[in-house]
Amino acid sequence: MAKQKKQPRPKAETPKGFRDYFGPEVEARRDMLDAIARVYRLYGFAALETSAVETVEALGKFLPDVDRPNAGVFAWQEEDDGKWLALRYDMTAPLARVFAQHRNGLPTPYRRYTFGPVWRNEKPGPGRFRQFYQCDADTVGSASMAADAEICAMLADALEAVGIARGDYLIRLNNRKVLNGVREAADPAGEVDRDAVLRTIDKFDKVGEAGVRELLGRGRLDASGAYIDGVGLTGAQAEPVIGFLTARGDTAEETLANLTRAVGDSAAGAEGIAELEEITRLLAAQGYGPERIVIDPSVVRGLGYYTGPVYEAELTFEITDDKGRKRQFGSVAGGGRYDDLVKRFTGQAVPATGVSIGVDRLLAALEAKGRISLHQPGPVVVTVMDRSAMAEYQAMAAELRKAGIRAEVYLGNPRNFGNQLKYADKRGAPVAVIAGEDERARAMVQLKDLVLGAKIAENATLEEWKSRPSQVEVPRAELVAQVRAILEAQAQDG
Amino acid sequence: MAKQKKQPRPKAETPKGFRDYFGPEVEARRDMLDAIARVYRLYGFAALETSAVETVEALGKFLPDVDRPNAGVFAWQEEDDGKWLALRYDMTAPLARVFAQHRNGLPTPYRRYTFGPVWRNEKPGPGRFRQFYQCDADTVGSASMAADAEICAMLADALEAVGIARGDYLIRLNNRKVLNGVREAADPAGEVDRDAVLRTIDKFDKVGEAGVRELLGRGRLDASGAYIDGVGLTGAQAEPVIGFLTARGDTAEETLANLTRAVGDSAAGAEGIAELEEITRLLAAQGYGPERIVIDPSVVRGLGYYTGPVYEAELTFEITDDKGRKRQFGSVAGGGRYDDLVKRFTGQAVPATGVSIGVDRLLAALEAKGRISLHQPGPVVVTVMDRSAMAEYQAMAAELRKAGIRAEVYLGNPRNFGNQLKYADKRGAPVAVIAGEDERARAMVQLKDLVLGAKIAENATLEEWKSRPSQVEVPRAELVAQVRAILEAQAQDG
Repeated sequence: MAKQKKQPRPKAETPKGFRDYFGPEVEARRDMLDAIARVYRLYGFAALETSAVETVEALGKFLPDVDRPNAGVFAWQEEDDGKWLALRYDMTAPLARVFAQHRNGLPTPYRRYTFGPVWRNEKPGPGRFRQFYQCDADTVGSASMAADAEICAMLADALEAVGIARGDYLIRLNNRKVLNGVREAADPAGEVDRDAVLRTIDKFDKVGEAGVRELLGRGRLDASGAYIDGVGLTGAQAEPVIGFLTARGDTAEETLANLTRAVGDSAAGAEGIAELEEITRLLAAQGYGPERIVIDPSVVRGLGYYTGPVYEAELTFEITDDKGRKRQFGSVAGGGRYDDLVKRFTGQAVPATGVSIGVDRLLAALEAKGRISLHQPGPVVVTVMDRSAMAEYQAMAAELRKAGIRAEVYLGNPRNFGNQLKYADKRGAPVAVIAGEDERARAMVQLKDLVLGAKIAENATLEEWKSRPSQVEVPRAELVAQVRAILEAQAQDG
Repeated sequence: MAKQKKQPRPKAETPKGFRDYFGPEVEARRDMLDAIARVYRLYGFAALETSAVETVEALGKFLPDVDRPNAGVFAWQEEDDGKWLALRYDMTAPLARVFAQHRNGLPTPYRRYTFGPVWRNEKPGPGRFRQFYQCDADTVGSASMAADAEICAMLADALEAVGIARGDYLIRLNNRKVLNGVREAADPAGEVDRDAVLRTIDKFDKVGEAGVRELLGRGRLDASGAYIDGVGLTGAQAEPVIGFLTARGDTAEETLANLTRAVGDSAAGAEGIAELEEITRLLAAQGYGPERIVIDPSVVRGLGYYTGPVYEAELTFEITDDKGRKRQFGSVAGGGRYDDLVKRFTGQAVPATGVSIGVDRLLAALEAKGRISLHQPGPVVVTVMDRSAMAEYQAMAAELRKAGIRAEVYLGNPRNFGNQLKYADKRGAPVAVIAGEDERARAMVQLKDLVLGAKIAENATLEEWKSRPSQVEVPRAELVAQVRAILEAQAQDG
């Protein structure tokens, strides 16, 4: 801070696509992640926190959904050795690096959970940020379907632990090998673009059976009037795909039988069906039946690296969106089995399976269900009527805190009492404590019920006001008990 | 993952100066930070989580302890608009940005707490990393000494909440204005380098009174034989500084009287002493006496931006260092009052005061005191004797978990049972559950006490082995109760 040239003032802004989180948003997320961590921990998963920064070399070119494989990360060059470093874009690439780096010290299989921010150097948009939280659990080094079953059961437990009731979610299970089998059955000679078939399957939820038939064939006129080219399968070729998409029956057995028909004599398909069967059987034995976990052929999961079972947690209740329309809440978590991530480092394929919870989406769901509130009451505010009595005001706040009640003393300029009440309002304070010279001389305090006060100001009749005044004088010695009584009355009013 | 040229395999390494945190390290830190957050929250402090990335412009040139003001951060340029972005290097610069950006929406004073990683682009060294945690609490917009007193009280509460007992810590309080007053008294004409006087004061703990006298005067031969130039004060001029450094008396009153003598008729000095007096009075009224918070003139705090009270939390117990020597644990938190950070953005000076806890140091202290253990037992491991009974093994683990006992099924290749026990050992498992075809036919399970087993393998006599076998067979129906009994016996053995 030595002499500086006069410079224009810096702008007080987050960079484009970044944001800050305040108060209840931070705490609600922390509580939710802690609850999930407790479940994961109970399942024997070990916590891992990798560095936010990785070498670009270690991150590799696995960034999903990005056309330019080198783009998508925030990267910079080290000054001394010219190495490129970058912020992690997900939790899976660092896990692969950790497992390769520490494989002699880590147990195999290695179950780990982690949560924290990841960064994507993408174009920001509404509700689309360049820093966001991920919460992952993976089992590395186990080829057993029991590992996939365990992740599904643990995901169900985690959702219930944070407050999503049974019946309000469904874990939908599919298998990439079955998808591959269906493609083989539809197009054994490999005449059409196989990824195009996958992308079409992914549109089933949107365009329905008839739409998928058109897209698998010659093409389709979409709602905007544009013509979408089809994949080019004949009607007969499309049949296994349609059979696959409509395979979901009333029971797992029925679904599996339908799938078996759809994959014909594809070996990959049969293998995938056997895997689904085993996962379903293991889950059923532990009481995770179709009210929680179902086989659903329409689950595709975008990422190229999945090789076997894929799964997705969907919230099944309706919410009202920004435009007042009812819609299903949709997916809050997804994952699956992948084999090639560690191979990059060691040359050795290591089987792995894992799930990632969409932290922001799950938080939004909890808010929509009223499980968390981002408008929690603030602390009790002890106002300052007399600056020389500051020690006494601080003692009042300390007493309240000792009783577990959040409390603070107003520490701005106390001259204007109106400003103190405005402050209490901005803090969302439920109660203001007022003790002027007069009250203190009589060993009394005034308690102002700010929630009731706001209600009365809005619409209460004179009768109600009389029966329950929004401001009461109580003995100083009863401060804690009387504040607690007001807080309890407020909680009952909702 | 389309065709690629053959490339050398990437190295599985963290970048230089970065590290990963595993299992208990992650969880112990999370628990500690959660406990601190609960205290801060109770004091009315609101959580804040800013983005990890800031514009370089907003971060400014406030990076402490770095000679090159522009260096020290990890920075990169945006592709589209050429703006420079950087990772935050502390939590104070982002707080200043947030307060300036949201000042109309935020309450004033604004009390906020935050914790998370910060990044420094510095040369890494042993125990010196380029990413580490900070945990800060600040009150922005209050000039009242009650704000400083509150931070000190809250810091004491937080230390006790995480497990530092009263008597094992001391919060040492000083005031920059007193320091300035002493410099004025020593050198009213401003003949010598004033920062050099500060730096010399900071060496008091190391070189003692005689050493400081030499350094304030002509200079001093240090232990290595090098000659350190002195500040150049005369003996008479040095007297107020020495008076200041030795001002700490048995009571706050005595210390304040000594300080008053040391600052002579400096107005700044008198103001600083009045501030210390007020903070001490407010704290004493709430029961925070000299056994927890003392005025200590030797506290300087390096950062240039402090303008008034400065404070530091010191742990007063001894630990044994790497070389087997006893030493005081030292400082785990520090802070003070600063005024200019928000002014950069708005032109308006905003008074602020706050504290930062050294997260890694406090964790190390808790470990040294045995408050946390980084060698916690792992989960109970259910071994797999018979792959076709996987559902039953998973059911056993689920039962244990339902009773709150961390448990998992071995999911590696079960063929070699020795590998399963090695795995359980690597996991730090306290108990292995073994249920082969034979046991299952008789509705029994074997429980292997791995902690006791390890002890017996090391040094137990035959007698002990007989009286408490390390492996027992129990009815399957008693699985949970019997595992719990073993865990309790292990906990009692310590």
